[in-house]
Amino acid sequence: MSGYVSDAVVRRLPAYYRHLRELETQGVTQISSQDLGDRMQLTPSQIRQDINSFGGFGRQGFGYPVKELREHIRKIMGLDQNHRMVVLGAGRVGRAIASHTGFAGEGFPVVALFDRDPERLAQSTAAVPVYLEGELEERLPAMDVRIGVLALPAEEAQEMLDRLYDLGIRAIWNFAPADLHCPRDMVVVNVHLSDTLQILSYRIHQMEEELSRR
Amino acid sequence: MSGYVSDAVVRRLPAYYRHLRELETQGVTQISSQDLGDRMQLTPSQIRQDINSFGGFGRQGFGYPVKELREHIRKIMGLDQNHRMVVLGAGRVGRAIASHTGFAGEGFPVVALFDRDPERLAQSTAAVPVYLEGELEERLPAMDVRIGVLALPAEEAQEMLDRLYDLGIRAIWNFAPADLHCPRDMVVVNVHLSDTLQILSYRIHQMEEELSRR
Repeated sequence: MSGYVSDAVVRRLPAYYRHLRELETQGVTQISSQDLGDRMQLTPSQIRQDINSFGGFGRQGFGYPVKELREHIRKIMGLDQNHRMVVLGAGRVGRAIASHTGFAGEGFPVVALFDRDPERLAQSTAAVPVYLEGELEERLPAMDVRIGVLALPAEEAQEMLDRLYDLGIRAIWNFAPADLHCPRDMVVVNVHLSDTLQILSYRIHQMEEELSRR
Repeated sequence: MSGYVSDAVVRRLPAYYRHLRELETQGVTQISSQDLGDRMQLTPSQIRQDINSFGGFGRQGFGYPVKELREHIRKIMGLDQNHRMVVLGAGRVGRAIASHTGFAGEGFPVVALFDRDPERLAQSTAAVPVYLEGELEERLPAMDVRIGVLALPAEEAQEMLDRLYDLGIRAIWNFAPADLHCPRDMVVVNVHLSDTLQILSYRIHQMEEELSRR
């Protein structure tokens, strides 16, 4: 019975997955919308709506089966598959991502880093091979990569996206502070760190204004 | 006549700010909702609604004054102020944030790193001082910090948030993969990297399903 899944629900899917995984570890087999809502800081009715939109799980009064729901979410998020990643840009952000061991365990292994600066190749202490950006067209096809991670300066990001598209990559995890244009059959998810910091700043000042009005 | 600013609009504020800054650099003084929409991949009517909700700028047929609008957004986001940050956790993520020179230029300087592991202090090559976590209560009050950056394992994050609250910190930039509970007079913005990766995975599989149905 799954219907249209809104952007807001999609954004919450990873949190559902995280909480259900924790519950499973704790040996919980069934959970009510009330208890799940308490954990996730959502109302029970929001929980029921969300889960109905992507699953149609659970019966009134019986709660949700933790393991089945977790596996269902894992499947609709495609986490039962492996997504090999290549990182473009071997600066601090690119190296931090390439060295983050957690992603591989979740099915997102980084298989290589590319950078246009030969000096960065020489200095690299990364756990994955680092290649010159000029070798991208030659090396990428053999790598069986599904996700391109953009850790480049903003002004280089669009050109790199276009190159990756031509090489058959259809998914971009973008850390460059730029809004990229992409073809219809490509997906981009942005991690704009400065944006989240500015949103934090906005919320600080809203809170301060509110307190000062009391 | 600024009204209620929705979460969706708040999330777009940094993008408005970024685009207006670029336009200003290019010498553009006025911009229509149509042209701004084309840049931001939003409809002209969405642009008008957004700007109306936080500004009440512009007159029909005249477009928006770039500099004034940029300055207005800068002010409501509190970016005219300085926000000193302290990073908790000197692992890869914590060190990458502390070494990211861009944040200081935007008014968010990192003034110190704290870690519970004495070995990390010794190994540190960070540009900012690294202290033992046990010295937090003693050192933080003199640092004039407004934002605590959590770059800790998930299981240590809540306890650290509580400690920072007791020390007067009211804003948290959270990189730990945990949903934290915070008092009403505190704000938390999450950067859950794994979540964004899972959302990307979800979108890949939605796209593939759609293509396979054609």
